Amino acid sequence: MEIKQEIERRAAEIENLIASYLPREEGWQKTIMEAMNYSVMAGGKRLRPMLMQETYRLFGGNRKMIEPFMAAIEMIHTYSLVHDDLPAMDNDEYRRGKKTTHAVYGEAMGILAGDALLNYAYETAIKAFDRGQEQDALSQTDYERMVAALQILARNAGIYGMVGGQTVDIESENCPGMTKEKLDFIYHMKTGALIEGAMLIGAVLAGATKEEQRIVSKTAQQVGLAFQIQDDILDVTGTQEVLGKPVGSDEKNQKATYVTFAGIDEARRQVEQLSADAICSMESLTGKNVFLTELLRFLISREK
Amino acid sequence: MEIKQEIERRAAEIENLIASYLPREEGWQKTIMEAMNYSVMAGGKRLRPMLMQETYRLFGGNRKMIEPFMAAIEMIHTYSLVHDDLPAMDNDEYRRGKKTTHAVYGEAMGILAGDALLNYAYETAIKAFDRGQEQDALSQTDYERMVAALQILARNAGIYGMVGGQTVDIESENCPGMTKEKLDFIYHMKTGALIEGAMLIGAVLAGATKEEQRIVSKTAQQVGLAFQIQDDILDVTGTQEVLGKPVGSDEKNQKATYVTFAGIDEARRQVEQLSADAICSMESLTGKNVFLTELLRFLISREK
Repeated sequence: MEIKQEIERRAAEIENLIASYLPREEGWQKTIMEAMNYSVMAGGKRLRPMLMQETYRLFGGNRKMIEPFMAAIEMIHTYSLVHDDLPAMDNDEYRRGKKTTHAVYGEAMGILAGDALLNYAYETAIKAFDRGQEQDALSQTDYERMVAALQILARNAGIYGMVGGQTVDIESENCPGMTKEKLDFIYHMKTGALIEGAMLIGAVLAGATKEEQRIVSKTAQQVGLAFQIQDDILDVTGTQEVLGKPVGSDEKNQKATYVTFAGIDEARRQVEQLSADAICSMESLTGKNVFLTELLRFLISREK
Repeated sequence: MEIKQEIERRAAEIENLIASYLPREEGWQKTIMEAMNYSVMAGGKRLRPMLMQETYRLFGGNRKMIEPFMAAIEMIHTYSLVHDDLPAMDNDEYRRGKKTTHAVYGEAMGILAGDALLNYAYETAIKAFDRGQEQDALSQTDYERMVAALQILARNAGIYGMVGGQTVDIESENCPGMTKEKLDFIYHMKTGALIEGAMLIGAVLAGATKEEQRIVSKTAQQVGLAFQIQDDILDVTGTQEVLGKPVGSDEKNQKATYVTFAGIDEARRQVEQLSADAICSMESLTGKNVFLTELLRFLISREK
């Protein structure tokens, strides 16, 4: 079996699951539902829910309460892209070869659609309590795990996670004072935090021990960092056709990246090292989930 | 005791409580915390947490788990103002006599500060589980009530509540097709939903019955509508000095309001009727909470 095809098959499965949690387009406020659904269904690797689900399975999880969290983390990822694309932010008209949300619905509705998605992510995550209950009455442990999962989601998406990273990223634009330390912080928070959140929620909901959670966190951080450096490399070496977005945009925007800091060879070496470390960490937990190991390997060596 | 002074005293108390839930301004991402705290501490009547607290007390609630929800609903109210004030939305440079968030921190940070506040509202609300646990171990009933409160918060803040109302409001701007039915929807959702959410969370956390919750919802809707119509009236009759914002801005923006629809006398009559109904409903529940009745009376007859 070709791993790339298996990943695509699972991404399609996850996309259907996410779609089932999206709002129906109805009522006076129909436009906002359309803008939300357009944004979420405009493509994407569905990486975060996939990592969440695989980590959940790795620790023996098999209940439906994971589903709302999978949908929620993809909604949060999507809202961050919708707002990132706004004229006052990166001002992008296209993403993955499609018009961005504000380009289709206007700027005001773009802001509101992002807000709506973020809020709906929590409205969705809270459904985990109902989904859990459909199968069995919830135990004290079930409640504790779901509350912990909500805490991880909120913390990693907010000012101590993704939004924190975006803040420093925005402040650093066109600003000559970038240091390696600051760049590490941005990568760690802006991309790493949500990937860490995804894997950690899977682990916590399945009942992983504290020590196991610690290893999952560390691995996720390595994956997030490798993933982001690979993005920087592709921005230099990729083709517009494959990427679906202009090549060399970092250079155009005078953006400091791992490649501008360390050079492309050193960046490639770092991706190798980080992914080897991540795979080792995961295999130290268990050798059972072959797909997860392959997924990590694939993500880091990807061409788009 | 002058009710106005008592309301101000309690608002100051609530402001301190909210402040204690705001993030410390520290780290690389310090600016976002500053922008959040600036936005929340820029004044306001603290109406929603006050109504929540009073409704909680009305049904005998006396635990600390209400506090994170009080802070959270004010954060959600504040984020909605921060985003409403953005150039792509109402484009306001001043609110309550102070510079708006984007006017101080720039447009990108204004968008991000709103996002951060919305996310932090959930991060904060989830702390209710911890606050509850500090006093007594959480029972099954405690968990159920807090999950229900989270559901109300998310639903009333989102596309089936506040954001839904904002969507229709934005779409209706400069659009001649406004009907009374659509205006009712906007008021019901944009202002009413969060006020309803506030009071309902208070009721649910304190263990109000389904029938009591129904009456609270109905009352809150009447209060929200009366509050919004009073706003329309003040926009015509108020003075800039008292309001802290330009008078007649609705007319300038060609905004359809209850006053433009029904005339000022009919609008005044409606406020009277709605507030009388709301007070009757609350008193049908219990005559004990004199402050809540007085607060409703005051809010509706206010001059700013």
